Amino acid sequence: MNLKEATDDHNTCPYVARDMTRGRFITLEGGEGAGKSTQVALLAQSLESTGIKVLTTREPGGSKGAEDIRKLLVEGEIGRWTPMAETLLLLAARADHLTRKIRPALEEGAWVICDRFADSTIAYQGVGLGLGIDVVQSLSDMVLGDIRPDLTLILDLGVETGLARAGKRQGDDHRYERMGEDFHHRLRQGFRDIAEREPDRCAVLDAEGSVANVHRDILAAITDRLKVDLLPAQPAEEA
Amino acid sequence: MNLKEATDDHNTCPYVARDMTRGRFITLEGGEGAGKSTQVALLAQSLESTGIKVLTTREPGGSKGAEDIRKLLVEGEIGRWTPMAETLLLLAARADHLTRKIRPALEEGAWVICDRFADSTIAYQGVGLGLGIDVVQSLSDMVLGDIRPDLTLILDLGVETGLARAGKRQGDDHRYERMGEDFHHRLRQGFRDIAEREPDRCAVLDAEGSVANVHRDILAAITDRLKVDLLPAQPAEEA
Repeated sequence: MNLKEATDDHNTCPYVARDMTRGRFITLEGGEGAGKSTQVALLAQSLESTGIKVLTTREPGGSKGAEDIRKLLVEGEIGRWTPMAETLLLLAARADHLTRKIRPALEEGAWVICDRFADSTIAYQGVGLGLGIDVVQSLSDMVLGDIRPDLTLILDLGVETGLARAGKRQGDDHRYERMGEDFHHRLRQGFRDIAEREPDRCAVLDAEGSVANVHRDILAAITDRLKVDLLPAQPAEEA
Repeated sequence: MNLKEATDDHNTCPYVARDMTRGRFITLEGGEGAGKSTQVALLAQSLESTGIKVLTTREPGGSKGAEDIRKLLVEGEIGRWTPMAETLLLLAARADHLTRKIRPALEEGAWVICDRFADSTIAYQGVGLGLGIDVVQSLSDMVLGDIRPDLTLILDLGVETGLARAGKRQGDDHRYERMGEDFHHRLRQGFRDIAEREPDRCAVLDAEGSVANVHRDILAAITDRLKVDLLPAQPAEEA
C-alpha cells in the first residue's frame, strides 16, 4: 500500500505535543442532520485561534478523485448500488483522500478535521445496509494502513430530529436520508456500538443541544482526550 | 456478501453438461490490442450457433453502475488514481457487474463471456502498478465470493504489436495504453504467471496470428478444457 509509517506515541505526555512533526487527526461522525459540518467549521476556528494549522475535509470526498466518486454515492436511487459495491466505492474514495490529502497534511504538522471517516462505513454499510461489521472492517483495514483517528467525536441525535434537520438542506445529495427510519435507527446504534468497542478513541456527544453547547462539549472532549488546552475562557492548570 | 452458493462439479464428466441449470463462465484476458473484443464476438456467434444461450459482457463495466465507474478508470490522466484507489474502483464495478449481470445470467443457464475479469486486476494493478499480487488477491476474493471463471483464455501478444493495434482505436479510453512500455511488459508477464499458477483454469493462446486462427484456437481450447464440442468443421473424436 506504500503507506509510510507514522508515529503513534501520543497520550504519554499530557499537555506536551508528543511529536511536533505530525498533526492530530480528528473525525466527526454521526447520522444525518447531527450538525457535523457546522461543528467542523467551529472547531477549525477554535484550533486556528490557538495557532494550530488546520485542514478541514469531508468524506465521502475531500480530494479531487474522491469527490468524483462521491457523486456516484450520494446521488441517484436508494438501491443504485449493492452494499458491497457501495463499500468499495467509499473505500476507493478514502484511499485517494488519505494518500493525497490527509496523510500529507498530517505529515506537515496540520491537524486534520474530517466530517465522516471510516466509522461511517462501518455504521452505514456494515450495520445499516447489513453487509456486516467484519467484512467492512477487513476491507477498511487494508485501506487505512497505519492511519487511525486520534479522536472520533460521535454526534448522537434522535433519528426524527436528525432527519427533520437534514431534510431542510439544499442539494442533490439526499440518497442516504431517504433510506428509511429503520435504517437510521440501525445507524445510530451502529455508531454507539463503535464507541463502546473503542472508548479510548471515541467520545459520544449529545447533539440535541444548541450549536454553541455542542461546540463547547467538543472542545472539552479534545482538551480531555488529546491533552491540549482549547478552552481559552477556562485556562487549564498545568498537569 | 449475500452470494448464493453455486455448483462447482465440472470437469468430472467429459462431453456431458454437469449442471444444466448453470451456464459456463469464460473470461478473455490479455494486454492492450490483443483482439479480445473481436474474439468475444466471434466466440459468442459460435456458441449461439450450437444453441447455447450466451451473454457477452466486459470489464471494467458491463452493468449500468459498473459502466459509470468505468469512466473514472479509463479516462483522464495516467496518475489520476493511486493503485489502491484504482483497484477498489475496479472491484466496486465488479461487485455490481457480478450481482446484477453475471450471476443472474449464469443462474438462468447462459454462458457468460467476459472481456477482462479478475485476472486483469491482478496483472494491471497487482503487477503492472506494483500494488502486489497478495493485496489484490485478498481484496478480489472478498468480492468474487464463490464465482470463478470456468475457463480463462489469455491472449498473449508482443507488447509493441499490441500497443500499435490499440493505438488505432477511437475513443477517450486510452489511459492504460499510455502507461509506458515497461508497464506493458510487466503486464504480459503478470498474465503468463497467472496461467502458470492456475494451469487448469487458464489457457495461454498466441494472439499474433490471424483473427480466424485465434478464433479456432479458442474453440479448440473450449472443446478441450470444458469438454464440449464447438468445432463443427472438425468433429472431435470422443475422448
